[in-house]
Amino acid sequence: MRTAPENVRRVACVGAGVIGGGWVAHFLARGYDVTAWDPAPDAEQKLRRLVDAAWPALTQLGLAEGASADRLTVVATLEEAVVDAEFVQESAPEKLELKRDLLTRLDAAAPAGVVIASSTSGYPMTDMQTTAADPSRLVVGHPFNPPYLIPLVEVVGGERTAEDAVTWASRFYEVAGKSVITMNREVPGFIANRLQEALWREALHMVANGEATVKEIDDSITEGPGLRWAFMGPMLTFALAGGEGGMAHMLDHFGPSLKSPWTRLEAPELDKALYDAVVEGCDEAADGRTIADLVAERDRGVIDVLRATGRLPRQEDPR
Amino acid sequence: MRTAPENVRRVACVGAGVIGGGWVAHFLARGYDVTAWDPAPDAEQKLRRLVDAAWPALTQLGLAEGASADRLTVVATLEEAVVDAEFVQESAPEKLELKRDLLTRLDAAAPAGVVIASSTSGYPMTDMQTTAADPSRLVVGHPFNPPYLIPLVEVVGGERTAEDAVTWASRFYEVAGKSVITMNREVPGFIANRLQEALWREALHMVANGEATVKEIDDSITEGPGLRWAFMGPMLTFALAGGEGGMAHMLDHFGPSLKSPWTRLEAPELDKALYDAVVEGCDEAADGRTIADLVAERDRGVIDVLRATGRLPRQEDPR
Repeated sequence: MRTAPENVRRVACVGAGVIGGGWVAHFLARGYDVTAWDPAPDAEQKLRRLVDAAWPALTQLGLAEGASADRLTVVATLEEAVVDAEFVQESAPEKLELKRDLLTRLDAAAPAGVVIASSTSGYPMTDMQTTAADPSRLVVGHPFNPPYLIPLVEVVGGERTAEDAVTWASRFYEVAGKSVITMNREVPGFIANRLQEALWREALHMVANGEATVKEIDDSITEGPGLRWAFMGPMLTFALAGGEGGMAHMLDHFGPSLKSPWTRLEAPELDKALYDAVVEGCDEAADGRTIADLVAERDRGVIDVLRATGRLPRQEDPR
Repeated sequence: MRTAPENVRRVACVGAGVIGGGWVAHFLARGYDVTAWDPAPDAEQKLRRLVDAAWPALTQLGLAEGASADRLTVVATLEEAVVDAEFVQESAPEKLELKRDLLTRLDAAAPAGVVIASSTSGYPMTDMQTTAADPSRLVVGHPFNPPYLIPLVEVVGGERTAEDAVTWASRFYEVAGKSVITMNREVPGFIANRLQEALWREALHMVANGEATVKEIDDSITEGPGLRWAFMGPMLTFALAGGEGGMAHMLDHFGPSLKSPWTRLEAPELDKALYDAVVEGCDEAADGRTIADLVAERDRGVIDVLRATGRLPRQEDPR
């Protein structure tokens, strides 16, 4: 029996570390009753500390009616955690065998039909659902840290997941205040983690080779592209590097630098199909906004972000 | 004769497209007299349009005393542009031969000693300075789009650049209100472009393979990691994924996923030297702030950014 996404009241969080605990804080703030279980001996103490630390921020953001940290129950067994759950979020350590076993146990213990989502950072559900009695209700619901503040959840099923479980999960997360990308195919690392992993790997190479320090890497993002990425993604941002010609001009101009050894990641061939897909994708994403509109939007966004984070450009007169 | 960085009044911008024009707007807003030259027939019209479009934002940010768009002079030749310049910023199209020739001509025309910086997105100065009579004053000063709002400039010299030219340029950019990373060795793509290029290449692979649309790629960043990167870089951000154990715990936990096929970029070996460099680098970057301090800072930052960009989580009660 699956509760409608809008009517869910009881959520179980299994695994209560940084990510699981962040989910607990999020669901509590959105007004759910949350039951949590984690096998670590000091898990409850750490979890309550995490929730307490997040609560002022969540209060400032606005709690749902009736939301309270008192509506968290920490239980001693996995079975107790999920016995009357209407949704289950699994956030165990990132080990395939462990997640496979845990999902199998959760499936055995949770009420029939209840959707069980895994916070995995990158394992395909197809690889995790192999031993569950009912794999059809197992989905990936991949959050970002901290789940109580970063809106994104990537939702995707495995080969044996039923489509209605994916649809239900996506809708539930939306009701619970998240921003959802529903993927229709499995890609290791999903979308955002592949992108940040590419950046992370290049950063590690730079540290390993003495090309940049940890601080320089961080500063190069927060003082540079990171300011734009808070509100305009890398594709539209790059489209604006093409001036009034947009992404097509950008690709004409910078396409050749894909051949440059600028990262350790080999670039794809920029053939006509890819060129067109990128240019047309940007047009669709722009959704009627002109380049001038986007430039104005970007400028407002950067100023808002600089102001909000106390980093307006220094104002001293240069003379 | 090199003017002290604090006393510079006259800046020449050579190449006045998106980046060159952005530099013009920045220097005008900081109160400099700017002379610009660009060989395109409609360059002046486009440049003035760009400056006019940027001016409201720059006014809102606060102009330097006496700053005015009227202090822009567009001239007909490269030689006129630089004849009495105290600093030259070159922002020509990204073609090595063209930049090499242009820097040679700029060096011939600019007053002796004046520092000439190239906005190149990735060419090492060593490759661009080969034909200049005085290569010692040629540096890279790589900005981000738009240069009038994104603070970062990466400064680095070539093999034949004098160290005092690099020092001068870094100081000058600081005086002119930029945030400077001075690199002591040449790496193709510098720092931030390597990082965003890795992300961009992976994004292009995903589009090419039909794994994600342009819009999904952009949304996955702006609703996810991009919110954090506006004020906390990827290294410290990842350190917080390690919970109270910080970066060391994060590497212990997620280190093995470096072996996963999460991107097309092969990861470096996470040996002890790299492990230590990353953990110690994070400690240095944290500069005395505890993990709890950083978590609180991140949470405040995300809330500020969400609020500033009008994207607080939806507030509806889930029931």
